[in-house]
Amino acid sequence: MNGLARYFPILDWGRTYDRSVLTSDLVAAVIVTIMLIPQSLAYAMLAGLPPQIGLYASILPLAAYALFGTSRTLAVGPVAVVSLMTASAVGQIAQQGTADYLTAAILLALLSGGMLVLMGIFRLGFLANFLSHPVISGFITASGLLIASSQLKHIFGLSVSGDTLPAILGGLALGIGETNPITLAIGIGAVLFLYLARTRLKGMFAAMGLKPRLADILTKAAPILAVAVTILLANAFDLGAHGVRLVGDIPRGLPVPGLPSISFDLVVTLAAPAFLISVIGFVESVSVAQTLASKRRQRIVPDQELIGLGAANIASGISSGYPVTGGFARSVVNFDAGAETPAAGFFTAIGIALATLFLTPLLTGLPQATLAATIIVAVLSLVDLKAIARVYEYSRADFAAMAATILVTLLWGVEPGVVSGVLLSLSLFLYRTSKPHMAVVGQVPGTEHFRNIDRHSVITDPSILSIRVDESLYFANSRYLEDRIAKLVADCPAVRHVILMCPAINDIDASALESLEEINHRLKDAGIAFHLSEVKGPVMDRLKRAHFLEELTGRVFLSQFEAVSSLRNGTAASPSLQSAQNDQPRRDDVTLVLRPDPSLP
Amino acid sequence: MNGLARYFPILDWGRTYDRSVLTSDLVAAVIVTIMLIPQSLAYAMLAGLPPQIGLYASILPLAAYALFGTSRTLAVGPVAVVSLMTASAVGQIAQQGTADYLTAAILLALLSGGMLVLMGIFRLGFLANFLSHPVISGFITASGLLIASSQLKHIFGLSVSGDTLPAILGGLALGIGETNPITLAIGIGAVLFLYLARTRLKGMFAAMGLKPRLADILTKAAPILAVAVTILLANAFDLGAHGVRLVGDIPRGLPVPGLPSISFDLVVTLAAPAFLISVIGFVESVSVAQTLASKRRQRIVPDQELIGLGAANIASGISSGYPVTGGFARSVVNFDAGAETPAAGFFTAIGIALATLFLTPLLTGLPQATLAATIIVAVLSLVDLKAIARVYEYSRADFAAMAATILVTLLWGVEPGVVSGVLLSLSLFLYRTSKPHMAVVGQVPGTEHFRNIDRHSVITDPSILSIRVDESLYFANSRYLEDRIAKLVADCPAVRHVILMCPAINDIDASALESLEEINHRLKDAGIAFHLSEVKGPVMDRLKRAHFLEELTGRVFLSQFEAVSSLRNGTAASPSLQSAQNDQPRRDDVTLVLRPDPSLP
Repeated sequence: MNGLARYFPILDWGRTYDRSVLTSDLVAAVIVTIMLIPQSLAYAMLAGLPPQIGLYASILPLAAYALFGTSRTLAVGPVAVVSLMTASAVGQIAQQGTADYLTAAILLALLSGGMLVLMGIFRLGFLANFLSHPVISGFITASGLLIASSQLKHIFGLSVSGDTLPAILGGLALGIGETNPITLAIGIGAVLFLYLARTRLKGMFAAMGLKPRLADILTKAAPILAVAVTILLANAFDLGAHGVRLVGDIPRGLPVPGLPSISFDLVVTLAAPAFLISVIGFVESVSVAQTLASKRRQRIVPDQELIGLGAANIASGISSGYPVTGGFARSVVNFDAGAETPAAGFFTAIGIALATLFLTPLLTGLPQATLAATIIVAVLSLVDLKAIARVYEYSRADFAAMAATILVTLLWGVEPGVVSGVLLSLSLFLYRTSKPHMAVVGQVPGTEHFRNIDRHSVITDPSILSIRVDESLYFANSRYLEDRIAKLVADCPAVRHVILMCPAINDIDASALESLEEINHRLKDAGIAFHLSEVKGPVMDRLKRAHFLEELTGRVFLSQFEAVSSLRNGTAASPSLQSAQNDQPRRDDVTLVLRPDPSLP
Repeated sequence: MNGLARYFPILDWGRTYDRSVLTSDLVAAVIVTIMLIPQSLAYAMLAGLPPQIGLYASILPLAAYALFGTSRTLAVGPVAVVSLMTASAVGQIAQQGTADYLTAAILLALLSGGMLVLMGIFRLGFLANFLSHPVISGFITASGLLIASSQLKHIFGLSVSGDTLPAILGGLALGIGETNPITLAIGIGAVLFLYLARTRLKGMFAAMGLKPRLADILTKAAPILAVAVTILLANAFDLGAHGVRLVGDIPRGLPVPGLPSISFDLVVTLAAPAFLISVIGFVESVSVAQTLASKRRQRIVPDQELIGLGAANIASGISSGYPVTGGFARSVVNFDAGAETPAAGFFTAIGIALATLFLTPLLTGLPQATLAATIIVAVLSLVDLKAIARVYEYSRADFAAMAATILVTLLWGVEPGVVSGVLLSLSLFLYRTSKPHMAVVGQVPGTEHFRNIDRHSVITDPSILSIRVDESLYFANSRYLEDRIAKLVADCPAVRHVILMCPAINDIDASALESLEEINHRLKDAGIAFHLSEVKGPVMDRLKRAHFLEELTGRVFLSQFEAVSSLRNGTAASPSLQSAQNDQPRRDDVTLVLRPDPSLP
């Protein structure tokens, strides 16, 4: 993709657009539209916004993503985790149901969109890489639990607020006496129906002889059936008069494009949550897009995805919507239903626009409990307990970051949760690199290969101490290096040469350079020559710019084998060390094979 | 050092204490006391505190450090940088000259002492390693400039406040018209005298035939001479009545041990500056102690140093003092004057106590300009412009961290300066590790050694792509790895084996493991086997705990040489790849020697 097509992928796929592709896209759009209507309403409710806002966020953003996005099948719109994050961010500055609350949500979409576009232009997509997989996975699991529990109030028909697990559960416990039984019946019924639809219906359809793909799509349409049935029930028995909370009047008509009045203070307050929403939304969306693209051997361009998602959020903001991103479930439906190009997104946008114009009167009687049930069943699939066990088994550090993310998210909320997970995983990485693994190495018999004397049967020479440092040398570990080398040398009194084997040293910063100078200096005082081996090209280039190599008492060898051969055959020591050599017994000809000690790590 | 002696080093050196050591320590103590009197007054003025506070901070803290510290020659007390940091921290919450200001300074010493002791007990001394050399060096240089310019007001006899360079210089420029000419004359005279004493006097004494050590000590006593002469002048001409600001009455007598009344809010406010003061003070002090210890082949124990400095600060706090640490200049004087044990510190403490009891009336007439001159001349040696040039030449990243530290310290103050330097150096390290150096490698002819094909003449095989990654694999670079390998493979259509050479991979975290699984999966789809070579012991141990090795399409080889030999001699490919192999031309026997491309980095 070159030139304009890099920024407008439509110029790429648009050229080969034909009738058969159009048919595929139209079919997929119809199916996604049907799925998206209840989802939009539900996620708007989760975000604490009026239902029509969810619909608005499902029109223009889809069109904008279709123009700028690189995924052929990603379906953009309101999603659960971002809706929760919106509720959490906006809930801290305004009361649900007020005009300020809506303004803040719209501004959040605009800010997030602006940030995503800027990140795309400056190619800052790599920032998302600092969210490790365990942190993301822990955050999604915790969000799923938070979202599900936050919807229980609608199932019980209670008014409870709070955005942490203790607040939500405490509120429910206090209010449980005022449960509305009819609401509860509808809620539990809808949850059971949707849960069975998700787990059993596909198998039943298959047993009835339906094609797997059709069975799958029909299964995914279960929420619209739940919506239709509960609307009919609510209208037939006038459930609204019996205390069942209904969606109520939804304004007909399309949103008028425009900007809310924005205060600078509000922008400052919302900047941090907008950034987190941008990054989390981007990560979620890109991983969905990448999974789907690789199934059809297509490619997505992460930096252009930032622009696509940014455009979608800006479009959401100027049409009174709230933050959106690519959703997993609906993208899979879009893909399975045969969508071939982003045009399917355009058609879905038209479908939702038509629904907003003509279907909203039908939705007035929809019980909120039904929407809550669709959310609960949808988000429980986000909770992945097996991933927690897998990470625990593989790496305690990763598990610690994951556990911190989950606990902090549940107990203090979504923003502290992500931030503490990221900070903990970075801190653990820094801590680990500050105390690098170091090994004394010897030659594997019959090869030119050198390995850890504690793990392999290797040949060593008592006058030569070969130390391999398994980390780049930088400020956080340079003093540790000095201490360790001093200790290793102190334990080997016969040593006359220290070789620092550097294949794992990818960088030596200014602090580490000073430490190497210090080590060289101290070893020189002790009559020991200091050599380097297997120094990488870029590291060597930089060392040449300093005075270290001139002061080095020993030499720099291309390979460890060359270093040991040359020093063992003797005599290559620098003149300044001659006297020290004479003080010590000559044992050049003694070699010994060390056995690995099984008790060592 | 075992048992109690680990925590009370006095049990170690005290056993061999004899008369000759006593004499050496006493001589050193007298010299340090003479040097410390004007310094204590001057640094208290720099910290915005009454002069006696500087004296108090030079009594008990010295005794406490002598009990717990591991350096034989470190001289503890008020120092320039910590005094500046105290002024900056306390100045934000109280007005100079008020009781609240003093209380906050005392609390700062207590907090800092408590933190240092805790860091010592929990062996958290490694935290100081996250201050890189360039950040420390930049901070010290910037502090020197800030301190020197903050003292100009005393030289001009003006009242100017502010703790950033623009505020200080702006204030001076506005007030310059009200300069007191006599004060200016004394100030400039003292600066010139002290500067010449520092740069020339030693040579003059040497020319007069004095021993170098004596010449050196006499030179260091120049400030006490400047103090004496200006006191005489001020008294003789009653300069106080001519607008020359004098030190004024200093309360006689020793501080009464006790604690100030402390509010919890104040503790919270001062916690962050106290932490920074602790870490900066520790780093400064340890580097002085280490330099001096290595000259006499002694050792210091960093974690015990934390306890020693912590005890000194707590002692300072309970005797109405402010934060202290080991000072460079006075420790060198102590060392040069022949101090052999920490007992010299005890004796210095007694000397300062005597001075506080009996000498303070003599100091009433001391012009503040004289103290300012001693500070200015002392701190200019902190400004190390050559270090800036050296770091610039060696590493742009280190230079960026250094420049940021200097600029932010000068423009926004000391705390933001240190914090931004540390954050920038950590960010640059993370950024660098997130885009690791990767090289395609080949065999160096006649050896078993493999190096970068762009830098060395090496043998490669078109069906085998050997890639060396020069960094541990973790969340921040795992996606980059996927992208790079995909691109490298796409450029080599004949490839049937990819070998990831892992000598520089010191860790593979859970995110990177998922990426390796993904790479293995994608290569498998493309009919390419994925092998690993030279995987380190600890990394291999961990990989065995995951399912990756079972899914791996290729093998794990001990050495890269073994990997290439075995794959080139053919046929070791896994059965699942047989069909893919047949699709491609067999070119196993073709080897070629690549020449390095000089245009490549």
